[in-house]
Amino acid sequence: MTGETTRAKATIVAADALTRFTTDVFARAGMSQAHAALVADVLVWANLRAIDSHGVIRAPRYVYWMSTGEINPTPAITVRTDTPAAVVIDADRAAGPIAMTTAMTAAVGKAREVGVGLALVRGTTHTAALGYYTLTAAQEGMAAIALAGSGPNMVYHGARAAGVSTAPISIAVPGGDGGPLVFDMGTGVIAAGRLLQARRTGQPIPEGAALDRSGNPTTDPKAAETPLPLGGPKGSGLSLMIECITSLVVSNAVLAEALEGTPLGRRHRQNGLALAIDVARFGDPVAFRGEVDRLVTALKALPRERNDVEILMPGERRRRAQERRTRDGIPLPRTLVDELRAVAERLGVPMFPQRNPA
Amino acid sequence: MTGETTRAKATIVAADALTRFTTDVFARAGMSQAHAALVADVLVWANLRAIDSHGVIRAPRYVYWMSTGEINPTPAITVRTDTPAAVVIDADRAAGPIAMTTAMTAAVGKAREVGVGLALVRGTTHTAALGYYTLTAAQEGMAAIALAGSGPNMVYHGARAAGVSTAPISIAVPGGDGGPLVFDMGTGVIAAGRLLQARRTGQPIPEGAALDRSGNPTTDPKAAETPLPLGGPKGSGLSLMIECITSLVVSNAVLAEALEGTPLGRRHRQNGLALAIDVARFGDPVAFRGEVDRLVTALKALPRERNDVEILMPGERRRRAQERRTRDGIPLPRTLVDELRAVAERLGVPMFPQRNPA
Repeated sequence: MTGETTRAKATIVAADALTRFTTDVFARAGMSQAHAALVADVLVWANLRAIDSHGVIRAPRYVYWMSTGEINPTPAITVRTDTPAAVVIDADRAAGPIAMTTAMTAAVGKAREVGVGLALVRGTTHTAALGYYTLTAAQEGMAAIALAGSGPNMVYHGARAAGVSTAPISIAVPGGDGGPLVFDMGTGVIAAGRLLQARRTGQPIPEGAALDRSGNPTTDPKAAETPLPLGGPKGSGLSLMIECITSLVVSNAVLAEALEGTPLGRRHRQNGLALAIDVARFGDPVAFRGEVDRLVTALKALPRERNDVEILMPGERRRRAQERRTRDGIPLPRTLVDELRAVAERLGVPMFPQRNPA
Repeated sequence: MTGETTRAKATIVAADALTRFTTDVFARAGMSQAHAALVADVLVWANLRAIDSHGVIRAPRYVYWMSTGEINPTPAITVRTDTPAAVVIDADRAAGPIAMTTAMTAAVGKAREVGVGLALVRGTTHTAALGYYTLTAAQEGMAAIALAGSGPNMVYHGARAAGVSTAPISIAVPGGDGGPLVFDMGTGVIAAGRLLQARRTGQPIPEGAALDRSGNPTTDPKAAETPLPLGGPKGSGLSLMIECITSLVVSNAVLAEALEGTPLGRRHRQNGLALAIDVARFGDPVAFRGEVDRLVTALKALPRERNDVEILMPGERRRRAQERRTRDGIPLPRTLVDELRAVAERLGVPMFPQRNPA
């Protein structure tokens, strides 16, 4: 759960200006205009939703991966297996947002025909904020699930070193007046991005959340290196199963290659899964949305833990952030602005206009 | 993770004798011989795997539900929606093991045709140990997922009362020499069954695991009543989404009815979901199983947390218990044996032969 970027050190940028800038960066680095615009949209959407760890902070790394060949800026995305309900999309190292959008679109198309659609993505890169894809599907009337298989950055239960990833899971369903419910979680006690953030801010790490480089528990923000799995064997087991049903089903192991230290295992690679269920195929979609709202109302009416605590639905805080940041702009830390400026200068892209902090 | 039943107070029963007995009980209570045998097999399987909370301890309650009409012993299971990839099974209040077995069989059949199969179960009862269904599918070459939507018995994050269920999730995939990986988790910090067990044994509840009747945190085994969600908003959000994609997709709300206290909400009802992915449709199934083993080997080679800790795979401890208990018998607490004897006497079923504790 990403907090607001500290205002004192932040620059405020309008979302559309940031999207134009990020599009220009990816286009100059070699992507088609359409691909550049889509990747930019996914990153800036994360910033709007205050998922800053998955926002434009990733752009310099994406540009770097385009230079090293991890990301193919002009991928030849092909379909490997195609049935009435399932498809394997060979992403040819496309940027994650390109591959995952292609996959979710395919899954939704299949679901409209036969009720459920499964799209497996083989060989993509950082899949960005999965909620973007499940929310899009939910807006089209689908219950949707997205998963990503990624490299080892989280402790496997019982070990003192990284063995699995903080594999993300997103689930979204259409809602009524409140809009879709959009659930997002990682399988770690703490997000890997939170550890990086803590290293910069010096804020202590909660107990039981991370190990240091030697594999010992720590709360020291300078030493914390590897997140522990949520609920011990639950988090690491879930992450292991996600690697199996994403990477291994499409014959593109990520974890084993990395753990064995093979040349392939040292490269940045991910696989993904998009599943869509067409709610209208199994019942009345208006009634479904009404039932979601009814359940939300019942949960919000529960007695609260404390008077100052609000009972929130999955994605509710994010939607509020999106409204606020769409109106007021996106706060970016000065250090990030400097990093983006360096990338822009190298590529000859004009910098986005900045507002003073509110 | 359920511990071994204390030997001192345990009776040892051979699995086949316990299965025969449990079959007789359900048949006498009104189920067909075939249904009775299947429900018994699922419960005794849980005992063999040392998931005793989902074993024959449930039999008296199942019999009670047959007498009250919650479980229909002679259900007319029908198909509501049927596409090449998806099916809704109207369970007509069939016992969970009957409905979930029917569903997973249907999902596997669809997956063989089109790569993926989704079976939604409408209106069943306690779905028992979900690993039974996913393991069966994995043994047929499938990656499989099973979910169940159930009544509120877990705190919703931010509330001080139950709002969602400790919704179970099971995922299994085919494996190589080590057999399938079978992952099972609930979405709570602690299982509801563990709280009941603690009430009997007096063992304290870990901090941060449960609330008492008034909604206050407690470690007192006599007072602990409602499990807290795993990872706060993660566990309760995941459980909420499971209700949406099981119960709400089939127009059979469980949580909202219960939270509103409607007559329907006071009855015992569940819905389920079975998803199968045919691994052979997307790659070489032998290579897949080899890759699972390769990953298992890499994870087991990680440096250990402590020397006395073993790095275990999902389901590994359970499989060992199954081997041990198949050979040595199943320990049942004396109180449970007494309860089963009472049911048996009422129904005129001969008691199973008991061995002395080893």
